[in-house]
Amino acid sequence: MTAMFDLRNVTQDRLGAEGVDWPSELSALLPRLIAGRDALLSRKDDPGQALGWIDLPTRQDLWLSTKELAARYSGYQDLVVLGIGGSSLGGLTLTSALQHPQRSLQTAGIGLRVHFVDNVDGDVISGLLETLDPAGTVINVISKSGATTETMAAYMIFKQWLQNALGKDYAEHIVATTDPEKGVLRPMSTKYGFATLPVPANVGGRFSVLSPVGTFPAALAGLDVPALLRGAEKANATFLGDPEKSDAALFAAVNCVFAGRGKSMTVFMPYSTRLRFLSDWFAQLWAESLGKRVNAAGQVVHSGTTPVKAVGTTDQHSQVQLYTEGPNDKLFTFVRVQQPGAVTLIPNVEPDEPDMNYLAGRSFHDLLNAEQAATANALRQNGRPNLTYVMPSVSAEALGELLQTLMLATALEGELLGINAFDQPGVELGKVYTYALMGRPGFEQQARELRDAGVEA
Amino acid sequence: MTAMFDLRNVTQDRLGAEGVDWPSELSALLPRLIAGRDALLSRKDDPGQALGWIDLPTRQDLWLSTKELAARYSGYQDLVVLGIGGSSLGGLTLTSALQHPQRSLQTAGIGLRVHFVDNVDGDVISGLLETLDPAGTVINVISKSGATTETMAAYMIFKQWLQNALGKDYAEHIVATTDPEKGVLRPMSTKYGFATLPVPANVGGRFSVLSPVGTFPAALAGLDVPALLRGAEKANATFLGDPEKSDAALFAAVNCVFAGRGKSMTVFMPYSTRLRFLSDWFAQLWAESLGKRVNAAGQVVHSGTTPVKAVGTTDQHSQVQLYTEGPNDKLFTFVRVQQPGAVTLIPNVEPDEPDMNYLAGRSFHDLLNAEQAATANALRQNGRPNLTYVMPSVSAEALGELLQTLMLATALEGELLGINAFDQPGVELGKVYTYALMGRPGFEQQARELRDAGVEA
Repeated sequence: MTAMFDLRNVTQDRLGAEGVDWPSELSALLPRLIAGRDALLSRKDDPGQALGWIDLPTRQDLWLSTKELAARYSGYQDLVVLGIGGSSLGGLTLTSALQHPQRSLQTAGIGLRVHFVDNVDGDVISGLLETLDPAGTVINVISKSGATTETMAAYMIFKQWLQNALGKDYAEHIVATTDPEKGVLRPMSTKYGFATLPVPANVGGRFSVLSPVGTFPAALAGLDVPALLRGAEKANATFLGDPEKSDAALFAAVNCVFAGRGKSMTVFMPYSTRLRFLSDWFAQLWAESLGKRVNAAGQVVHSGTTPVKAVGTTDQHSQVQLYTEGPNDKLFTFVRVQQPGAVTLIPNVEPDEPDMNYLAGRSFHDLLNAEQAATANALRQNGRPNLTYVMPSVSAEALGELLQTLMLATALEGELLGINAFDQPGVELGKVYTYALMGRPGFEQQARELRDAGVEA
Repeated sequence: MTAMFDLRNVTQDRLGAEGVDWPSELSALLPRLIAGRDALLSRKDDPGQALGWIDLPTRQDLWLSTKELAARYSGYQDLVVLGIGGSSLGGLTLTSALQHPQRSLQTAGIGLRVHFVDNVDGDVISGLLETLDPAGTVINVISKSGATTETMAAYMIFKQWLQNALGKDYAEHIVATTDPEKGVLRPMSTKYGFATLPVPANVGGRFSVLSPVGTFPAALAGLDVPALLRGAEKANATFLGDPEKSDAALFAAVNCVFAGRGKSMTVFMPYSTRLRFLSDWFAQLWAESLGKRVNAAGQVVHSGTTPVKAVGTTDQHSQVQLYTEGPNDKLFTFVRVQQPGAVTLIPNVEPDEPDMNYLAGRSFHDLLNAEQAATANALRQNGRPNLTYVMPSVSAEALGELLQTLMLATALEGELLGINAFDQPGVELGKVYTYALMGRPGFEQQARELRDAGVEA
């Protein structure tokens, strides 16, 4: 089967006044969808534009060098990824979806155990230093700019930990993933002899999952990266054709229509524990790309709907009460997996209990999908628009297709909004204040400003 | 030091037109805060009301029987909690905040390794069955009603797994936490000889963290439950007094004021990896309590702001761009920890790199708190209201105080909104449709209805 969006629950037919006359709304949007797509594709090969991610699925050169480097570490036990935001969410999404779900509890298993240090919480970092064996650990420090404060701080302590344990050989245990030319990590790697992998200059962090940022951790985790890239190529191929047949274009279109109707939030809710970090990855992609103060013409627009992360069925017991009965201010996207991984049947151990025995002989997968269909239908009955992405399976290929679909959709949504989806000017002020509060030379003026405003570190 | 809310960044003084004249807005709300508090306290001892959670901090009887039962399992290696929503989020919050952050990687450590099965994902469940040793595993099945579909399905497979491995002795490995009288789990436990713990009848799932629902997993994880309860008592004590001095009343008041000013989302963002599941716990508490179609007078209100989960600094690299530059439709609550757990210093391993060496000799804790202060200030400069809960440390006592504060605040917010904060009628329809799609006898009519509407399981 192929992946597809089920859009029935956004239509007037099913939703009444809350729904849209979908064929005509889509027709009305088609010229803008085509123009947006063509604008993206026309800028794709411009090295000054941040659109290099579109072609990552066919960058065999990048994958082969990544694979070759990964082979060097196949005998190791642990990979620690030092990265934050776009430098960690891609790898986290891939490994949690596709590796054994209890890999860290296994004494032996496929691929290395992978740990993500995506914060500067000292308790968590010292906990890792205590439990891992430096001799069997590879550290992948990921920062495109080479200047991400949190990642550099983590690098410093892990470097010292390796050096203390391994002496000169420590450098073999560090792999730096960074810009091919710019930034401090690259010359430092040359100086110390760290292996390096590139983040292509025209690929931003939140669009980097199919670059070595994601594929190196994936390779060490033992995942099928070629299948991942093959899936992403499928999304590209359909994006080139008729927007009515491209999942990316359809997702952008539905979001655009409902944002226009006052839905300020877009809830992303896969029905799969393995896909829980896909919600986090999507939330970063959507929020950071589309939440902008000004549009390309310089007008103040304060754009962007707020992504809300959820996972089914878990959040049926947490968020669905609000989703069903609270303000009707959200669009919902479910991900429903068609083929299960392990087929696990619910055994008939309580034949006399009518509250349970109807489950006997059914699979957990059946139950999960019944709950998804039930929730989508209950929301529909309450006038809440929702769409369902039907994913063939939680496989590398299907995940690659979905990731690329969501990246293309987000970029296209940026075109529909007329904003730059590839910068993040809104986080600069916080960075500058952090430097000032940490006493970094050159930020004395901001430090005074903060002191005068009564802000303490 | 004592816990407190720093409210300066919601005031006109700091926020200009986006801020509120806080002393006068608070004064105007005081009569409603006092009336709401008194209404809650007056109903507290009524067994027909769901307010029994207020007194859990002093229910020594419950804690002593829980502790006694936990002692029986001290030699075990693993605890698997089968529960969803309010039956898992409390325990997950406590263990991830207070146990060793890499407990599952340690071969030996304080307390059992704790695993939460909070979904019906077959891959994850079979992964656990493969990796755990039944002889050293205790299963805690938690369902107040004893009829939660997901939990019952998980119970059935774990029961079979224990029986296959242990024969008749399997029953010693199951502890059921459920209503003292009602539901199917209690008579089943009597029949099979499972140990049981009560969820008091007047304590709902999302308010149950300080009942055996949370304290049994906490005790097995080796946490200091008496300190947790002591902290919660502090929140109760201040709640009884002047609302201007109660963190719970202040949090409810600020949320009420900004909901009235069109902030449709309340972002909860602790700066601590250990507190990441506190965001999930809070999101359930707030969403399910306050997202209601009708008020107590039966009028259609569609109430409730949407909780948005975040964690600092991680989400600075994911959500803060949108928070700063997107629509100004959110109120932000930060949690800032004053005293670090492990004091981990950033070593001076790159003395020649100005992008890094300013960090040398500083602790990760300093950096985390500088980032929190910087982000709060950057949001303030962009007119975004935010408050900061200053937490003395990530200790059992401080966490108990914060949990009780948030429960009291949510209940009080329900009073301010004039809604019932203790029911969840909006999830019934989805449950019924799930039964119908799973072929449960008695739901044939709904099954036909779904078939006619083209809904497939």
